[in-house]
Amino acid sequence: MSDSLFFVPVAEFNRVRNLNTGAFERAALVADLCRLNTLSMIAYAGSGHIGSSFSSLDIVAWLFLNELEPQPGKANGSGDLYFSSKGHDAPGLYAAMIACGQLAPEGLRKLRRLGGLPGHPDVGTPHMITNTGSLGMGISKAKGMAFADRLHGRRRRIIVMTGDGELQEGQIWESLVSAANHRLGEITVIVDHNKLQSDVRVSDTSDLGDLEAKFAAFGWHVARCDGHDFASLSAALDKVRDVSDRPRVIIADTVKGKGVSFMESASLGPAHELYRYHSGAPSPEDYARAADELIARTNRALDLAGAEPLRLDSDKRPPRTAPKDPDKLVAAYTDALIAEAGRDSRIVALDGDLVLDTGLIPFRERFPDRFLECGIAEQDMISQAGGMALQGLIPVAHSFACFLAARPVEQIYNNASERTKVIYVGSLAGAIPGGPGHSHQAVNDISVLSAIPGLELVEPCCAAEVGPLLQYLLREARGSGYLRLVSVPCEVPYSLPPAYKPQPGIGVELRPGTDAVVIGYGPVLLPQAWLAANELGERSGLEVAVVNLPWLSRIDHDWLRKTIDNRRAVFTLDNHLVGGGQGRMIAAAIAELGLDVPPAVRRFGLSDFPACGQNDEVLRAHGLDAGSLAGAFRQALAT
Amino acid sequence: MSDSLFFVPVAEFNRVRNLNTGAFERAALVADLCRLNTLSMIAYAGSGHIGSSFSSLDIVAWLFLNELEPQPGKANGSGDLYFSSKGHDAPGLYAAMIACGQLAPEGLRKLRRLGGLPGHPDVGTPHMITNTGSLGMGISKAKGMAFADRLHGRRRRIIVMTGDGELQEGQIWESLVSAANHRLGEITVIVDHNKLQSDVRVSDTSDLGDLEAKFAAFGWHVARCDGHDFASLSAALDKVRDVSDRPRVIIADTVKGKGVSFMESASLGPAHELYRYHSGAPSPEDYARAADELIARTNRALDLAGAEPLRLDSDKRPPRTAPKDPDKLVAAYTDALIAEAGRDSRIVALDGDLVLDTGLIPFRERFPDRFLECGIAEQDMISQAGGMALQGLIPVAHSFACFLAARPVEQIYNNASERTKVIYVGSLAGAIPGGPGHSHQAVNDISVLSAIPGLELVEPCCAAEVGPLLQYLLREARGSGYLRLVSVPCEVPYSLPPAYKPQPGIGVELRPGTDAVVIGYGPVLLPQAWLAANELGERSGLEVAVVNLPWLSRIDHDWLRKTIDNRRAVFTLDNHLVGGGQGRMIAAAIAELGLDVPPAVRRFGLSDFPACGQNDEVLRAHGLDAGSLAGAFRQALAT
Repeated sequence: MSDSLFFVPVAEFNRVRNLNTGAFERAALVADLCRLNTLSMIAYAGSGHIGSSFSSLDIVAWLFLNELEPQPGKANGSGDLYFSSKGHDAPGLYAAMIACGQLAPEGLRKLRRLGGLPGHPDVGTPHMITNTGSLGMGISKAKGMAFADRLHGRRRRIIVMTGDGELQEGQIWESLVSAANHRLGEITVIVDHNKLQSDVRVSDTSDLGDLEAKFAAFGWHVARCDGHDFASLSAALDKVRDVSDRPRVIIADTVKGKGVSFMESASLGPAHELYRYHSGAPSPEDYARAADELIARTNRALDLAGAEPLRLDSDKRPPRTAPKDPDKLVAAYTDALIAEAGRDSRIVALDGDLVLDTGLIPFRERFPDRFLECGIAEQDMISQAGGMALQGLIPVAHSFACFLAARPVEQIYNNASERTKVIYVGSLAGAIPGGPGHSHQAVNDISVLSAIPGLELVEPCCAAEVGPLLQYLLREARGSGYLRLVSVPCEVPYSLPPAYKPQPGIGVELRPGTDAVVIGYGPVLLPQAWLAANELGERSGLEVAVVNLPWLSRIDHDWLRKTIDNRRAVFTLDNHLVGGGQGRMIAAAIAELGLDVPPAVRRFGLSDFPACGQNDEVLRAHGLDAGSLAGAFRQALAT
Repeated sequence: MSDSLFFVPVAEFNRVRNLNTGAFERAALVADLCRLNTLSMIAYAGSGHIGSSFSSLDIVAWLFLNELEPQPGKANGSGDLYFSSKGHDAPGLYAAMIACGQLAPEGLRKLRRLGGLPGHPDVGTPHMITNTGSLGMGISKAKGMAFADRLHGRRRRIIVMTGDGELQEGQIWESLVSAANHRLGEITVIVDHNKLQSDVRVSDTSDLGDLEAKFAAFGWHVARCDGHDFASLSAALDKVRDVSDRPRVIIADTVKGKGVSFMESASLGPAHELYRYHSGAPSPEDYARAADELIARTNRALDLAGAEPLRLDSDKRPPRTAPKDPDKLVAAYTDALIAEAGRDSRIVALDGDLVLDTGLIPFRERFPDRFLECGIAEQDMISQAGGMALQGLIPVAHSFACFLAARPVEQIYNNASERTKVIYVGSLAGAIPGGPGHSHQAVNDISVLSAIPGLELVEPCCAAEVGPLLQYLLREARGSGYLRLVSVPCEVPYSLPPAYKPQPGIGVELRPGTDAVVIGYGPVLLPQAWLAANELGERSGLEVAVVNLPWLSRIDHDWLRKTIDNRRAVFTLDNHLVGGGQGRMIAAAIAELGLDVPPAVRRFGLSDFPACGQNDEVLRAHGLDAGSLAGAFRQALAT
């Protein structure tokens, strides 16, 4: 199997744009060339969203070539704005931006790399209008831009692409009302209605019903089109262009994965069959088949236009190094939840459109009546959990930590005020994986939740700690719990004592050491601390103890006193913003111990929004890799 | 003017319920008696929501008397559930619950009192189904209850009252989708469509458009009725009772303040005229007029039914002690914002249906084109602000801190990731006023926001500090800012130095002292600390310095070192949950100073959800009044 990945040079885009051919043919060609670059950049990066990029690329190509004024790449300045509210179609958008010269082609090899093109749109990238990736915000943002335009006496179009699953988010419906009341005709929304969300059909997750009637009821002018038929699309754009006194929405029927036959979602079978190309790099076999198809179709079109075939660049697919025998905490969680649910029939699970990622598919199969899919509607999910808890169930609500501890905060607080038991499970926690970008790297969740009365926050440091912590939350904790889970497979060099049972506020020593002690949590940074301690022990003769404290918002003062006794320094280690994580709690507790000879205290963690890049790049960028930590520990102990 | 307040004894409710009269007449009588008790309990308490209680009371009375199975008060157990999603009509609901015997009549004198009836519904109150006051959660909660019912093999009705302004909240529209898809026929929503939100017309704030079409588009069965005409209401309830395969909504046209002629909103004039009976106790004159009207109408009805006139209890209206010459921080903010906007035309203001409370009416009058009312839609408001900031404006977004730092957290984080400048102003901050209850007492906002990169959190300790801090955020801070404002008028015994200019991370000594130093912020607790320090100085010879640190999430280590130098103890003081406030930052910083002889450190603040009660009750309940603080300081210094 070849390792080659094929990229379309900018010169080929220019050649295609100057072909003597019709607008529809040109757009189709450009879109397919963008598809190839999208596919290749994702294959090169090792992750990215193919399906959603492909379903929207025909629309994006048409907008870029024929609709936006000025044409992107032709001129700078205050012309029409286009951006994607859903954000995960970023690779496709990048391909289009590279094609028209807005972005340098080097970006094709730098998707999700430090200093490259972020996994979700960020304004640090030239010509990127706004940060998306957190769903449902785009129409609101467009309204703010329109308000600014009107204040500045300017009027131009703002075109916003949304997903269809995204329309489950309440903010979307909040945002429609004033757009209509204020007659924001400058706004056009295009819904990439590819009928799937994440890996499953929208209609199975949370059927959107009659979308046209809904938008119309909210006062918007509605058009519909085939998002892969340029005649249909351009007619819809023409139709809405004439309506200037109301905001406009074009519902574009599309196919997720459109453009590569076996990646198209139309063949998805019965409910619960998973779509395979939502996120993630294609296998080498899939890549080769897909690239062949795209190249072949493009060359046929070029031939029909009397032009030379494609001249492509090629690059080797970078080798991937997978962890050798990693701990997989979400898989451990899946088993633990099923075990707990088997012994306590009150336990039910709720999910927010992430059932594959949150590890809930086996639970759903085992306990179908006790599983509730809520769609991309975190506020609704959390308050439903609250209602269940009031009626004697033990609801366990799941999402990515970046969403769970940010979208439904008022709802979590309200539930806690009722003093029932609700368990919240936030996966994808922390700065890793670094590829998706800051919308997905959860580094503020501990700060948001840690002060809420009756809510216990815990994070396991290895697969073996998942079950015991979940058990504690379900069986022993009096109130609610937040279980923070790292999703990436991690090599974990330590192990917990046999018959380990978590004790509230008490940690466990993973590695002894008399000079200093580093206290942290989780399977990403504790291994780094372990390696750093080993390095210091071998090279500098310094012995740094490594302690796992899985309790993120409480600490036992007696245990802390014993743990830091006679150590010259205490280092805390947060896979989180350092201003609001576990480390701040530990440092405050040390101050309150009233020690005669307190240790030096230094806190480690993120001090800015997390960088986007490969996992090792991201750790290094924030000084949290073993080498950086070893240097910092050594320096602290030298003074 | 009489000081008498008139209460309807339970015996009179029983008499009326047993009258030989028709169901409509009985319901009207019961509703009016509830209105009198509602009016009187609010007058007795000094605050509460009249308009919304009155608009919903006819519906509530009808439900209680004729619709809910079993009739409330008749039997306990798993019968139909009723609750109000909007929550602020709690006084009316309490009156109905007292009327039917679910609550003891002593509650009439204990609205918003410690140990009494909370300002917004809390499950600590007997028969209260769920905590509301945070808007938009009720339908979601009902769905969770229905899920639990179905799992338990039970089916019963769940009736949820919503407001109409509440329908601007995105969570409402999130919650409608699965209710329809899952055919949750057990749920009936009644919209108290009184056309006003807070103090102004819904149609002026954010017109809801065609509500029936909207609900129908979301798959709900829709009925409409006159919420004050029992024939119309009962017909609507009959109509929806037959529809069991879909959730049902009854849009009840009502009048805010219905039942007392001059309190009814139908006479509201042109846009921007404020409705006067949304919240707050009635003036003695208004009380007397309203009570006379209700009593007269009730006695006419009793006479028509051949019954004796009302026999009422009466009580004196408790005297109110108003602060003598208080600082009013929101008023100071109003002036400061206008001054800043006058010098920088980029500044614009956004509001979320709280324009009177947030002090924005003068700004709106002065700069109408630079003011945007967003309605009860915080997520939408914040992302609009983000869009404005991207386009070069400086948006200042306002709401109560309890909502601002809880509903749109993901949106605030997303804005911050764009590294623009957005200013957030959260008023009603802290545990005071204590009357509304925990849904409104903002004690978690610092924790939620303090770690977000590029977001500066500040709180002024007196009216004179408001302008300088706002200026700092607007003119000097590089990124975004959060200005936390206490809304209650506060007597402030200290003053800032002349020509005071806030320096980042640096505080200002308000009172000297060599034994210990208390560091805090805000005009509620610093005066308590001041009084406590005075008491200790006079009685115990201990000199405790009082220092104002208006920076909630950053501190200058050199300044801190000098401030605590040679003090035996440092006390931190948070008008916030102690686990996540400024005090934790200070304690952590002390640990990191590396002092040879560190002081004892003790943190003060709330350690549980805030109590509901009068302001002084609440402070005492949490040990934050001057007397409690003095005792705690003394004890700490004695050891």
